Amino acid sequence: MCSVPVPRAPLRRVAVTGGTHGNELSGVYLARHWLRDPGELRRPSFSATPVLANPGAAAACRRYVDHDLNRTFTDTLLASRATPNDPYELTRARELDQLLGPKASGSDRAFDFVLDLHNTTANMGTCLLVDGAHNTFALHLSHHLQLQFPEVPCQVLLTWPPQSARKSFSLDSVAKNGMTVELGPQPQGVLRAAVFSRMRALVASALDFMELFNQGAAFPAFEMEVYRNLGGEDFPRTQDGDLAGMVHPQLQDRDYEPLQPGAPIFQKFSGEEVLYEGDSTVYPVFINEAAYYEKHVAFLRTEKLMISVPPLPPLSPAPTQVL
Amino acid sequence: MCSVPVPRAPLRRVAVTGGTHGNELSGVYLARHWLRDPGELRRPSFSATPVLANPGAAAACRRYVDHDLNRTFTDTLLASRATPNDPYELTRARELDQLLGPKASGSDRAFDFVLDLHNTTANMGTCLLVDGAHNTFALHLSHHLQLQFPEVPCQVLLTWPPQSARKSFSLDSVAKNGMTVELGPQPQGVLRAAVFSRMRALVASALDFMELFNQGAAFPAFEMEVYRNLGGEDFPRTQDGDLAGMVHPQLQDRDYEPLQPGAPIFQKFSGEEVLYEGDSTVYPVFINEAAYYEKHVAFLRTEKLMISVPPLPPLSPAPTQVL
Repeated sequence: MCSVPVPRAPLRRVAVTGGTHGNELSGVYLARHWLRDPGELRRPSFSATPVLANPGAAAACRRYVDHDLNRTFTDTLLASRATPNDPYELTRARELDQLLGPKASGSDRAFDFVLDLHNTTANMGTCLLVDGAHNTFALHLSHHLQLQFPEVPCQVLLTWPPQSARKSFSLDSVAKNGMTVELGPQPQGVLRAAVFSRMRALVASALDFMELFNQGAAFPAFEMEVYRNLGGEDFPRTQDGDLAGMVHPQLQDRDYEPLQPGAPIFQKFSGEEVLYEGDSTVYPVFINEAAYYEKHVAFLRTEKLMISVPPLPPLSPAPTQVL
Repeated sequence: MCSVPVPRAPLRRVAVTGGTHGNELSGVYLARHWLRDPGELRRPSFSATPVLANPGAAAACRRYVDHDLNRTFTDTLLASRATPNDPYELTRARELDQLLGPKASGSDRAFDFVLDLHNTTANMGTCLLVDGAHNTFALHLSHHLQLQFPEVPCQVLLTWPPQSARKSFSLDSVAKNGMTVELGPQPQGVLRAAVFSRMRALVASALDFMELFNQGAAFPAFEMEVYRNLGGEDFPRTQDGDLAGMVHPQLQDRDYEPLQPGAPIFQKFSGEEVLYEGDSTVYPVFINEAAYYEKHVAFLRTEKLMISVPPLPPLSPAPTQVL
């Protein structure tokens, strides 16, 4: 992401994207609703544009048609020459890059912020995915949401493993800044009213925060608990690569809880237990997420950190004239 | 189903089928496990054959490849002439009909019983789907399972709406008799260890019942509470057929509970509530089942009945010689 950790000017263009994965229905149906009736996204100081990110996958109620759209926004793929046989999601990624980006760093054309809406089958409550601890604006936004929604877990996950050589590849990376919201648990292909309503309220609250920022509000420094991705743990597998077992009942639904070395993590179909072999306590998240079976991820290991987030400086009173 | 409500001879050939829907993973992985290691299906008096019913859909982790296999076993489709462009599931249905049937009534070649394993995203616990109140054998089997598994709801659903002109179309209809087991809640594409283990134990208990029957056990008459399918209730929809709302939070997860006329059943995206307009109390099941969105079913309405099930007469001590 060509992220702007602290915007120097008001946000002018924000996108709220749903259906990046076509079977995560809260975002699909919120996007469709707002495309018909965008009133509730309106704020005085900026426009918020609803986008149905992957209409083909949404129509088929599948995560993707050809391959995972939310892994397609790499510099290499976006810069590749278009051909008639391109996968559906590559074509769509280029369209979204034109609409919301381009990702090329420093472009002034890009949207100021993309809020990308997802669901997970894991028992994660509300999870706010921020690209890293440098992203002061997204962390202040997350803090604001945590204060607004104290009744369910509302955690921050720093998405990139440390020392990762991976390049950003997700939809929100095409804009100047962005964040992904993951709400669960919700089965793929199902709308649960409570999850839908929570997502809708989160979006409203996120837009309110942006409005406050645009109006010149000051946001003081704070300490924050976050989870940092350390990488995935695969299921036990047979010699031919098929599953040999499943998430242990003692681990199922225990997202964000400490996992000690030696604790059971899998139950093999043969009856045998598989114990966690790491050498320190980790905090699993995305436990038993349906879409991650094919990615060979039964859960993500994370570490829990306390970080200091610096203040978010107020914009000057007449920011549009400063420029 | 050319059902034999009371077999006159021991069951000789039983099939346990999983993965009729390829993203209902308990049955998919049980079938794969038993195909590698069938030991736990063995009983002294009969063979139990594991079958992965829809390998193409299981490989893709989708309900079906071309169309719903579990709606494909009609006399008309099975008798239709094969062509090179047939949908995958039609070809597979013919293969299964050859393996487990044929469905043509009165054939002695057919398997004696098919137990077909499914999952639902609805909060239904264990649901035993029996074709009708005439099926004495399946109701005794259900009663046996209810007594073995008292800790979670274990209900019997009579699947056909009254006065239905529909012909049988499900996988278990190709054998002489059969039953479908639905376990939930479990998201599509997810294995939950507790659901998997419950299904495995139910199958073992069902085979034990068949063994008892084959050995000449007597099963007395009993009274039984059942739910009878009255038909489906669709979601509210927009003029172009898309969803206009979702299952109301007060109805979500309330499978088998009474729904009174005037109670809320849907929450529209506009905020409006939709109330139940029926003229008598019904008992919804399959509430918010992912696979039924495309079938325009938000839940099935059922009536709750008490039925009298006659005794299951014991086989004579040397039943194979009676024939």
